[in-house]
Amino acid sequence: METNQELSIRLRAIGRIHTPYVDSAPYQPTDDERDEFWITLEPHYGEGLRELERFTYIYVLFYPHRVSGEAPLIVSPPWAGGRRQVGVFASRSPLRPNPIGLSVVRLKRIEGVTLYTSPLDAYDGTPVLDLKPYIAGLDDKSDANVGWVEGSEDAAHLAVHKRGIPHGGELT
Amino acid sequence: METNQELSIRLRAIGRIHTPYVDSAPYQPTDDERDEFWITLEPHYGEGLRELERFTYIYVLFYPHRVSGEAPLIVSPPWAGGRRQVGVFASRSPLRPNPIGLSVVRLKRIEGVTLYTSPLDAYDGTPVLDLKPYIAGLDDKSDANVGWVEGSEDAAHLAVHKRGIPHGGELT
Repeated sequence: METNQELSIRLRAIGRIHTPYVDSAPYQPTDDERDEFWITLEPHYGEGLRELERFTYIYVLFYPHRVSGEAPLIVSPPWAGGRRQVGVFASRSPLRPNPIGLSVVRLKRIEGVTLYTSPLDAYDGTPVLDLKPYIAGLDDKSDANVGWVEGSEDAAHLAVHKRGIPHGGELT
Repeated sequence: METNQELSIRLRAIGRIHTPYVDSAPYQPTDDERDEFWITLEPHYGEGLRELERFTYIYVLFYPHRVSGEAPLIVSPPWAGGRRQVGVFASRSPLRPNPIGLSVVRLKRIEGVTLYTSPLDAYDGTPVLDLKPYIAGLDDKSDANVGWVEGSEDAAHLAVHKRGIPHGGELT
């Protein structure tokens, strides 16, 4: 069923994410100090980075361009070993009604229009939609929980996510 | 200058944000326990909420529909009393190259397709693009900082933001 709520927004790639993930093959980033993850902005947007480097963490909004098709409303995330059925809005699945991915990454440094970051679980070449500062006091919630993500298997999966490692053939 | 990086993504409003902010007039939400902020999804997407209620916090991605025009790359956020010039990507200004707003809110409860939340600094009727779970261990960064947001004036402004109160005629 299609709703008539289409918005006339034109999105553009303001840059690209660069990662070692060129296909679905597993890849294990072993050393967070090595520069294996970076974002390169279109030179036109370089001025928009002023003062961003002062933040420890940033939000990266991206378009998961290698995933396509109609988004199911119920998903079986690998987080739960495929055993659990949860709503797409209770998941971080890249296949969503509006294809916008979100990651919090540590900003290591900026050189020109290149931002070096901690691991990012997106395919190499993923278009970047936006960068925003992650602001202490506004975005860090010390009383957050993990919702339905429970048990040892889920916890292990979460640890993998935290390290930005793709798994299960999909970056979900 | 226009870049040729346009993406052929069709975005749709999956729902609407309801707040007491119907115009730019200041409004002071006084009691977080009162239900003054909620999100209503299109009924079609209701199934996608399954298990979301188990999370304490959620991300709300929205389209700041009352802001329009070309996004400047340098902005003077009210956070800094208009004194500071920072890049748009170092700000949370709603006027951005890709018009996607992001807020972390506490999820109080879900009734049908209505999600009651803590205060949200968006105008009443703002289209919702996505909801995602905010996951402890992945999204809460205890060593995050406030970047260029410093000094007493900025700190006061941050406190206002944390309470979801609009100010200065703009929700920035």
